[in-house]
Amino acid sequence: MVTRLSHYFVRTLREDPADAEVTSHRLLVRAGYIRRTAPGIFTWLPLGLRVKARIEAIIRDEMADAGAYEVHFPALVPAEPYRESGRWEAYGNGIFRLKDRKEADYLLAPTHEELFTLLVKDLYGSYKDLPLAIYQIQDKYRDEARPRAGLLRGREFTMKDAYSFDYTDAGLEASYQAQRDAYERIFTRLGLEYVIVAADNGLMGGARSEEFLHPTTVGEDTFVRSAGGYAANVEAFTTIAPAPIPFDGLPAPVVFDSPDTPTIQTLVAHCAAHLPAPEPGVAGPATADATTWSAAHTLKNVVLALTHPDATRELVVVGLPGDRDVDDKRAEVAFAPAAVEPATEADFARHPALVKGYIGPWAPDGAVLGEESATGIRYLVDPRVVDGTAWVTGANIDQKHVHGLVAGRDFVADGVVEVADVIAGDPAPDGSGPVELARGMEIGHVFQLGRFFAERLGLKVLDENGKLVTVTMGSYGIGVTRILAILAELNNDERGLVWPESVAPFDVHVVATGRDTVAFELAAEVSDALQTAGLDVLYDDRPKVSPGVKFGDAELIGVPRILIVGRGAADGQVELWNRRTGEREVLSVDAAVAALAVR
Amino acid sequence: MVTRLSHYFVRTLREDPADAEVTSHRLLVRAGYIRRTAPGIFTWLPLGLRVKARIEAIIRDEMADAGAYEVHFPALVPAEPYRESGRWEAYGNGIFRLKDRKEADYLLAPTHEELFTLLVKDLYGSYKDLPLAIYQIQDKYRDEARPRAGLLRGREFTMKDAYSFDYTDAGLEASYQAQRDAYERIFTRLGLEYVIVAADNGLMGGARSEEFLHPTTVGEDTFVRSAGGYAANVEAFTTIAPAPIPFDGLPAPVVFDSPDTPTIQTLVAHCAAHLPAPEPGVAGPATADATTWSAAHTLKNVVLALTHPDATRELVVVGLPGDRDVDDKRAEVAFAPAAVEPATEADFARHPALVKGYIGPWAPDGAVLGEESATGIRYLVDPRVVDGTAWVTGANIDQKHVHGLVAGRDFVADGVVEVADVIAGDPAPDGSGPVELARGMEIGHVFQLGRFFAERLGLKVLDENGKLVTVTMGSYGIGVTRILAILAELNNDERGLVWPESVAPFDVHVVATGRDTVAFELAAEVSDALQTAGLDVLYDDRPKVSPGVKFGDAELIGVPRILIVGRGAADGQVELWNRRTGEREVLSVDAAVAALAVR
Repeated sequence: MVTRLSHYFVRTLREDPADAEVTSHRLLVRAGYIRRTAPGIFTWLPLGLRVKARIEAIIRDEMADAGAYEVHFPALVPAEPYRESGRWEAYGNGIFRLKDRKEADYLLAPTHEELFTLLVKDLYGSYKDLPLAIYQIQDKYRDEARPRAGLLRGREFTMKDAYSFDYTDAGLEASYQAQRDAYERIFTRLGLEYVIVAADNGLMGGARSEEFLHPTTVGEDTFVRSAGGYAANVEAFTTIAPAPIPFDGLPAPVVFDSPDTPTIQTLVAHCAAHLPAPEPGVAGPATADATTWSAAHTLKNVVLALTHPDATRELVVVGLPGDRDVDDKRAEVAFAPAAVEPATEADFARHPALVKGYIGPWAPDGAVLGEESATGIRYLVDPRVVDGTAWVTGANIDQKHVHGLVAGRDFVADGVVEVADVIAGDPAPDGSGPVELARGMEIGHVFQLGRFFAERLGLKVLDENGKLVTVTMGSYGIGVTRILAILAELNNDERGLVWPESVAPFDVHVVATGRDTVAFELAAEVSDALQTAGLDVLYDDRPKVSPGVKFGDAELIGVPRILIVGRGAADGQVELWNRRTGEREVLSVDAAVAALAVR
Repeated sequence: MVTRLSHYFVRTLREDPADAEVTSHRLLVRAGYIRRTAPGIFTWLPLGLRVKARIEAIIRDEMADAGAYEVHFPALVPAEPYRESGRWEAYGNGIFRLKDRKEADYLLAPTHEELFTLLVKDLYGSYKDLPLAIYQIQDKYRDEARPRAGLLRGREFTMKDAYSFDYTDAGLEASYQAQRDAYERIFTRLGLEYVIVAADNGLMGGARSEEFLHPTTVGEDTFVRSAGGYAANVEAFTTIAPAPIPFDGLPAPVVFDSPDTPTIQTLVAHCAAHLPAPEPGVAGPATADATTWSAAHTLKNVVLALTHPDATRELVVVGLPGDRDVDDKRAEVAFAPAAVEPATEADFARHPALVKGYIGPWAPDGAVLGEESATGIRYLVDPRVVDGTAWVTGANIDQKHVHGLVAGRDFVADGVVEVADVIAGDPAPDGSGPVELARGMEIGHVFQLGRFFAERLGLKVLDENGKLVTVTMGSYGIGVTRILAILAELNNDERGLVWPESVAPFDVHVVATGRDTVAFELAAEVSDALQTAGLDVLYDDRPKVSPGVKFGDAELIGVPRILIVGRGAADGQVELWNRRTGEREVLSVDAAVAALAVR
């Protein structure tokens, strides 16, 4: 059935919505695809629902091809399984929680790992039942602190989440590869360029975790890649630790006055003015070959406050070369499940032993930082702070620093932590050369959960020898509504949306113009013919609307192929308009129908 | 792609689930269609999801035919619009409520009238935009006090809800008729016999409200119908009030001793033993022509406790002929939005003026019931208690009753109320003769909301004269998951499910039997041929499973047409098995494929 615009439930808007921060949000609202209902919560209008359905159809198709079967879990789920996995607590206030009339705890599920695990446990018991891949396309919920960017970061959103179940690591590897291949096909069909980057595998401890990123300068995620083929998001990047340096012959640490040098910049300036030049390669940090003082010679001690899932607050100090900063995302991953923030004035007030601006692991009267030290504050260092590296750092005395402070001799850290930012030129961990930094948007995530959930929820099967073995799982997610927004973000121009053909709400947008009934009759006839040929047709049959308004609406709505039936109608001539290139071509009706029918 | 049972995510169970109260629940769980996740909350397995999708496809098809466009509202919605309509309070603890991290109130929507209204208000402003019909198919939530009967009364359930928008009553009538027609087509396609009964239109006050009921003796709803074509559910049935009787010459009321007669039965026995016979047609209730005392001569006074939405509790007394009882559902509708229950001992204790077992509206020392009486308790009577009817009823003195108490003369009620049960033989309100009672299951509801929501939420459009007029709305609901359960409830036998072809999860279930690889090869070939012919094929290719188990599974799963490929395979012979009739027919492969391909 041809959809006639005169009756269709769509209103294009001239004004940008006041709350739209990003192009996709602005255009999807203006072109009548979505409406905001609450922060991060949207209503889908008919046009939007059509695009969403087409994306879902592509995903379903490729999931079937990968041998995955569709199921559907409730959105409203009991707390128990999430308590067993530990996530009920770990989620903090990031999820929506509620109680039913009997005061039982429920949540609106942000993901369903627990329930997938329990379902398989419920129904399956033998290695013969595996491998299994099941998925759902479902509305999920996250109580985002700051829902923003329209559909890109909503509180109610549609996800495809698939899970694989195997009883051997090799089986998981094969299942993972099948899903990874399906993702490549899905993104290709969606016309969405992607890079696959190594990702952090978080708390689950599975072997592999990769993200599909669409590379774009406006992306919110940073990733690194080398010319030699390495690619990872910054959270997953690992630093190559230099070899330790023997202590023998290294001079003892020297405390020096350094008035008004609470920052790395002021400290370096002070060193340059008052200390002898550093000896390259002899002392100093392993990376510092320079003969003039630089930030790389200093050891920056950053005080962070962790909030653990049990709500306890812990101060931790991170020591890293002074030319590096703490990267928030890397810190988030490094300290998960604890939440990380910079220490506050209140934190410092509670720890008067820390001399702000002059903090260091060592002071003339003994160790300052570390679990065994006077303060008991945990001290972690960057991988570059290997034994034998010598640093300029705070002496933990107001207005004083120390130089020649040697790691492993003068101070010993409680451990190593990867929180320093990655800088272009850093060596890729696989030896494939220096990395560059790029930006992208996450469009999919494939992820080996391993036995994390199966262990916690008791999912075991009998193997060939009749022995119970714990199942190993993979998790494979695509944000359907997020993908839709990204496609809108990437496919538009100053006049509106320009959908890829694979997901456009309609295949053809027929526009009848003028006051000539011949044009309207022909347009109706052509629309019917196109629909009969298997195309979805939107027909702008509005009788008293000017061609300008109609063309403007067509450009805003963004169906990639527009067919104009107007002046030439009496002679059987129509105009085919390519929304993307702007090309227009006058054709006979038959030629136009034939051209459109070949998709 | 042919679905192979050896890999499909399905497990049939031998045992009935312990919590299954009804056949549909028992069979859908046993045959691997659904699993329970929490009380009234289910997970959909691949087989169940397929049936659900087919029901939804039929509904979408007929909605499009009725000119309705699909939208999709969030399930998680802000409280504000529901506060404006008054339903945030009215729902009581029947909905799921929650707060987000900013302490804003949200609910999981049980229905979306408010949001549909606001969406149209948001986008439309002129009579030219109307009529409009929009719908969604969506998961909804109700915090049922006692979720039961599997999918028939769940807490998370899928609904199709459509709404129409018009600016004239005639427009609403036409929109209503279009949806009503679509419902008839939908239920016909689903193979679901239905009757359309007048329904109560509740608080909204719209003009028409009709339910589609499937008539079945196991139905949970009672409806009434006359041979002359009247049909209504009991809540909507209205009583024909008899004409008032002149008071002239009616004797004065007489109080008499009636020891130990606290029930209607003991009272009638006492009257028969101690009072002169009633005079037919002269005094007495209008319906009592008998010359011996019966329950119909007595006025029963039932004390009910109402809990209003503001949580206040009110006692109300209902006077009705003693041969009738209060019907709970009619009382629920009559007193909505208040909740109704029988008065408790505590209620009586708080109102010592009411002499339990001997309650009446009148006592020798004055009026006992009524807002103007000594007690101030509201007194409502059945429509049959018209002025001039004379009754035997309590004298509100222990062990005493009164006879000849005339309505309108000796007591005056505060109003009339329809709460008495409907009895077979009662006259239909449209004069079409006596009614009979029947049972059915609600399968759909079409409903003129009128201007209830539009007025409360300010949905107005400019009419032809540039005047703002309030929009009038219709509401049209079908419970998708409920329909699925009802279809399962109606289509089964002792061996399992027997789906109607229009919604079966697969069109054909191919079963390969024996150890002969020829059979399996032929079965695979036939399955491919059927799939190519456009059928959805489930192929039981399990290699080491006995024919008995395979047939048992096929019968349990309930695909209506089963094709057995076994012994005759070498000769190109297969067996076509009609699951519903049990008929089996041996055919050549080609004949079988041809027979199946004609749907």
